[in-house]
Amino acid sequence: MREIVRKRGEKMGDMEKTRAERDEFFMREAIKEAKKAWAKEEVPIGCVIVLNGEIIARAHNLRESKQLPTAHAEILAIEEACRKTGSWRLEGAELYVTLEPCPMCAGAIIMSRIKRVVYGASDPKGGCAGTFMNLLEDERFNHQSEVAPGVLADECGQLLTDFFQQLRQKRKAEKAAKQHLSMQQTEGHE
Amino acid sequence: MREIVRKRGEKMGDMEKTRAERDEFFMREAIKEAKKAWAKEEVPIGCVIVLNGEIIARAHNLRESKQLPTAHAEILAIEEACRKTGSWRLEGAELYVTLEPCPMCAGAIIMSRIKRVVYGASDPKGGCAGTFMNLLEDERFNHQSEVAPGVLADECGQLLTDFFQQLRQKRKAEKAAKQHLSMQQTEGHE
Repeated sequence: MREIVRKRGEKMGDMEKTRAERDEFFMREAIKEAKKAWAKEEVPIGCVIVLNGEIIARAHNLRESKQLPTAHAEILAIEEACRKTGSWRLEGAELYVTLEPCPMCAGAIIMSRIKRVVYGASDPKGGCAGTFMNLLEDERFNHQSEVAPGVLADECGQLLTDFFQQLRQKRKAEKAAKQHLSMQQTEGHE
Repeated sequence: MREIVRKRGEKMGDMEKTRAERDEFFMREAIKEAKKAWAKEEVPIGCVIVLNGEIIARAHNLRESKQLPTAHAEILAIEEACRKTGSWRLEGAELYVTLEPCPMCAGAIIMSRIKRVVYGASDPKGGCAGTFMNLLEDERFNHQSEVAPGVLADECGQLLTDFFQQLRQKRKAEKAAKQHLSMQQTEGHE
């Protein structure tokens, strides 16, 4: 694995390097989930939940397929993890997600008492883990989660950029095809 | 129905009176749901969702029964309403809940684009519809819901107070019975 160097330039200590490598490893698993969402024409966001070093749940955004506003990757992964462990308390668990959680998912993370949240790309439009507001570390709630932002941020963000670019192109092509068909029909009537 | 009089003393206009009576009517339905939760030894919180003047979903807190942190009354009602309508967009719908929504439920309300939220008791420990913070009317999100607080607040709050009082008494009685049993066993060994 390539040597990870901090912004300030110095090398990481072994402990820290291990943690960063570990975070990148699990974020790559979350990215795999995001790609599964894309394959279903869903916004590519993926999530995995880790307990004692093992992935106990993995999920991806399924809002359109399920027609449920709650079918975000994090909510589906939390519910899966609870079914696996048999408890609504996910104390000690870590959640990896490719996009910064929205208010609903940040709330679900607080409610399930997840210990640590690692996210990829920031969400300036609604990210509630530090960008827009920080619900996860708000000490007024009865639980706080540690937040590690920006893990493989470029890769996670690029996936979203590419998805929306492809979606715009697809819509443009569909519109053009519709106009072409409409023109042909008009000509046929003349 | 008894005449509803505003705090300032004057009578409400017909339009306003109708809305207050309507809100109380649907809140009573949410209270019925809260009582169903109590019967299952769950914290008594209930919710109904109204569309075009009709209840399209009703649910109550099932966190312990389902062992899911997401099984709050509001989330279950929102999911039920989406299954009924076949869409994750609940534009035009009104949500009635006996306790002010937590961050997760406030987030789910924003995500489902619910038009109006009517709640009973305020939650000073985590209410995100005005008490602790106001996620629902935060204009930085891409959707806002109108909030009507305090409808049948005393009745909704009393239900929670009574539930927790009964729970404490039950636990105290269980502890006393355990101590009594332990004393009897010690005496038996002497």
